[in-house]
Amino acid sequence: MTGFLLSKGFLAKFGGRLAAAAREAGLDPLVLHLPDDAGTRLAPEDCARIEIAYLTRDWRFSDHYLAFGDTVRACPNLKWVRFASTGVDQHPFLPALYRRGVKVTSSIGSNGEPVAQTAICGLLMLARRFPVWWDAQRRHAWEPMRGEAVPRDLEGQTVVIIGVGIIGTAVARFCQALGMHVIGVRRSPRRDEPVHEMHPPAALPELWPRTQWLVLACTHTPETHHLVNAATLARLPRGAHIINVSRGGVVDEPALIAALRSGHIAGAHLDVFEQEPLPAESPLWELTNVVVTPHNASASDGNDRRSAEIFLDHLRRWARGGPLANQSAG
Amino acid sequence: MTGFLLSKGFLAKFGGRLAAAAREAGLDPLVLHLPDDAGTRLAPEDCARIEIAYLTRDWRFSDHYLAFGDTVRACPNLKWVRFASTGVDQHPFLPALYRRGVKVTSSIGSNGEPVAQTAICGLLMLARRFPVWWDAQRRHAWEPMRGEAVPRDLEGQTVVIIGVGIIGTAVARFCQALGMHVIGVRRSPRRDEPVHEMHPPAALPELWPRTQWLVLACTHTPETHHLVNAATLARLPRGAHIINVSRGGVVDEPALIAALRSGHIAGAHLDVFEQEPLPAESPLWELTNVVVTPHNASASDGNDRRSAEIFLDHLRRWARGGPLANQSAG
Repeated sequence: MTGFLLSKGFLAKFGGRLAAAAREAGLDPLVLHLPDDAGTRLAPEDCARIEIAYLTRDWRFSDHYLAFGDTVRACPNLKWVRFASTGVDQHPFLPALYRRGVKVTSSIGSNGEPVAQTAICGLLMLARRFPVWWDAQRRHAWEPMRGEAVPRDLEGQTVVIIGVGIIGTAVARFCQALGMHVIGVRRSPRRDEPVHEMHPPAALPELWPRTQWLVLACTHTPETHHLVNAATLARLPRGAHIINVSRGGVVDEPALIAALRSGHIAGAHLDVFEQEPLPAESPLWELTNVVVTPHNASASDGNDRRSAEIFLDHLRRWARGGPLANQSAG
Repeated sequence: MTGFLLSKGFLAKFGGRLAAAAREAGLDPLVLHLPDDAGTRLAPEDCARIEIAYLTRDWRFSDHYLAFGDTVRACPNLKWVRFASTGVDQHPFLPALYRRGVKVTSSIGSNGEPVAQTAICGLLMLARRFPVWWDAQRRHAWEPMRGEAVPRDLEGQTVVIIGVGIIGTAVARFCQALGMHVIGVRRSPRRDEPVHEMHPPAALPELWPRTQWLVLACTHTPETHHLVNAATLARLPRGAHIINVSRGGVVDEPALIAALRSGHIAGAHLDVFEQEPLPAESPLWELTNVVVTPHNASASDGNDRRSAEIFLDHLRRWARGGPLANQSAG
C-alpha cells in the first residue's frame, strides 16, 4: 500500500488515470484527503500511511493550505511532496521537510505556454500602446495616435530574456516571430534555444545598454535578488520596457517605480511583486504604462491536466526508484 | 518635367530618395505643395503641371485634406493619385477621378505587420482576459482568476481568418505560433498561406459553427458588407470572439452588440466601426470584454518609410509604362 494525500477535486478529475498509472507502476494506492473542515487535522494513524502528498491549486488557494502544511509535517513516512505550481516558493513547512530528506518537486512545464502568452500580450500591449487606447475607451474618446505619438516599429528592436527555461523559450519564439532581435541569458544553455545570441549572466553588464525590452523569466535566487535595481535600470537605454513574470524579488520595486516616474523606463508589465497581494496604496496600480496582472499570468484551464500528467509520469519513475525531475534542492 | 503634388513633410523625409528614384527612372521632377493656408488653392497653371499626387498622412489627417481633394479634381493632366493608407476608402473626390481614368493606388503592404500585431494583441488580451485584470487594476484590487474563472487554453482553438492578404497572412502566422488551428478564407488563394485549411467564401456556412475566433481582415465590398450579422453570429459557437481590423461595414454593429450583451459572443476587439469616429453614446465603449482601438491598429513609426519605398518602387515602374500594383478599380 502506498498512501497518497490528494484533494477530492484531483481525484474527481484524475482518479481514473491515477489508478491506471499506479497499476502500471505496480503500486497499490491508498488515497487520503484532508478533512473537509479545514480546522481539523488527519489522525496520526492516517498520517503514518502517507508517502506522497500533492498540493493542488484547490488546496493552495483555500483554508486547507495551513492544514496541508501541518499534515505533511506530521507524516513520519512522507517521501515526496509535489506542488501544482511551477516554482516551489518559501512555504513555511518546507525547511523541516528538506531536513528530513523528503523529495520536493514542482509542476514546471505545466503552464509555460500560458505564462509566455501573457508576457507576450503584455509586451505587445506596451509596444502598441494599448494603455493609451484603453484610457481613451474609458472616456468614450476617439483619439487615434498620429505623428510623434505613434509607437515605434517592434521589428528590429532588441529583447533580452533573462532565464531561458520553458517560459523564456516560449517567449523567445514569439519574439522571433515578431521580428525582434532576441538575446537569451542563461547559466547553462542547451544551445538549441530559439535566440539570436545566448550569454551567461556574467555578460549582463555589457547587455544592459542594448536592452530595449527586458523580460524576466528566471528563478528568484540570491544571485537574481534585486538584479534589476537603480544601477542596472540606469544602464538600460531611455525608453526601455520591462516584463516580469518571474518573482517580485528579482526587481527592486522602489527603483523601478522611480524609473517609470522619470520616464527613463517607458512601461512595464508586472505579474509579480515584492509584496503580494500588491498593497492598494502601491503607486504601480496608477502609473501610466504599467500593466498589472495579479500573479496570475499562468491562469489557464489546461494547467491542472498538464500538471497531473507530469505528476503521473513522475509517479511511474518514482515507483521504479528512478530520479525525479523538477526536484527542488531546498 | 513631371509634376508631383507632395507634402513638405514627405519631401523633408524622402526628398533625396525621390530625386534618386526619379533620376533612375529618367524623370525630371517638379514638386508642388499645397499652399500652407489650407483655405487657399493652387493656381490653375500649377494644377496643369501636376501628373502625380500623393495623399500622405500629414495631409490626410489635417485641414489640407479638403484642399487636396479640390486640387486633384482641378488638375487636368493628373495621371496617378497615390494614398498612404492600405485601403482606398470612399474619398468624395474619387468618383470624378475614376471617370477620367486617373490611376488610383494604395500603400497596401506598408503597415501589414503593425496591424497584425495589434490584432494578435487584441486576440491575446481577450484570450487571457486582460479586461478582467485591467478593471481590477483600476480599482487597485488584487483579484487573480481561479477555478471556473480561468481562461481556456488558446492552444488547439480554431481561428477563422477572413481575408488572407498581407495582414491576414501575418495574423495566420502568429496564430500558428500560438498553437491554434488556423482556417483561411480567401477568394483567390496563392496556396502558400500559413494556414491549416483554406476555403473559398462559399464555404462560410459550414465554417461558422467551427469558428471559435473570427478575425476579419478582408476588404469591404458589396460581398462582405454585413457579412457578420444576426444570422451568421447565431451560427458561431457560444463563447466565440471577434477581431475586426478590416472595415466597420463588414459587421452589422447592432447585431454584434446584441450578441455581446447576450453573452453568445464572449468578446471583441474592434478597430473599425460602421460610423467613425465611434459616437460617444455607442454601447461598445462600455461593454465588458470589448476592446476599442480608434481605427488606429496600423499606427507605427515605420509606415511612412515603408509607404514611401513602395511609392518610389511604383514610380520606377510607372516611368517605364509598366502596370501599377495596388491599383483600385473604382
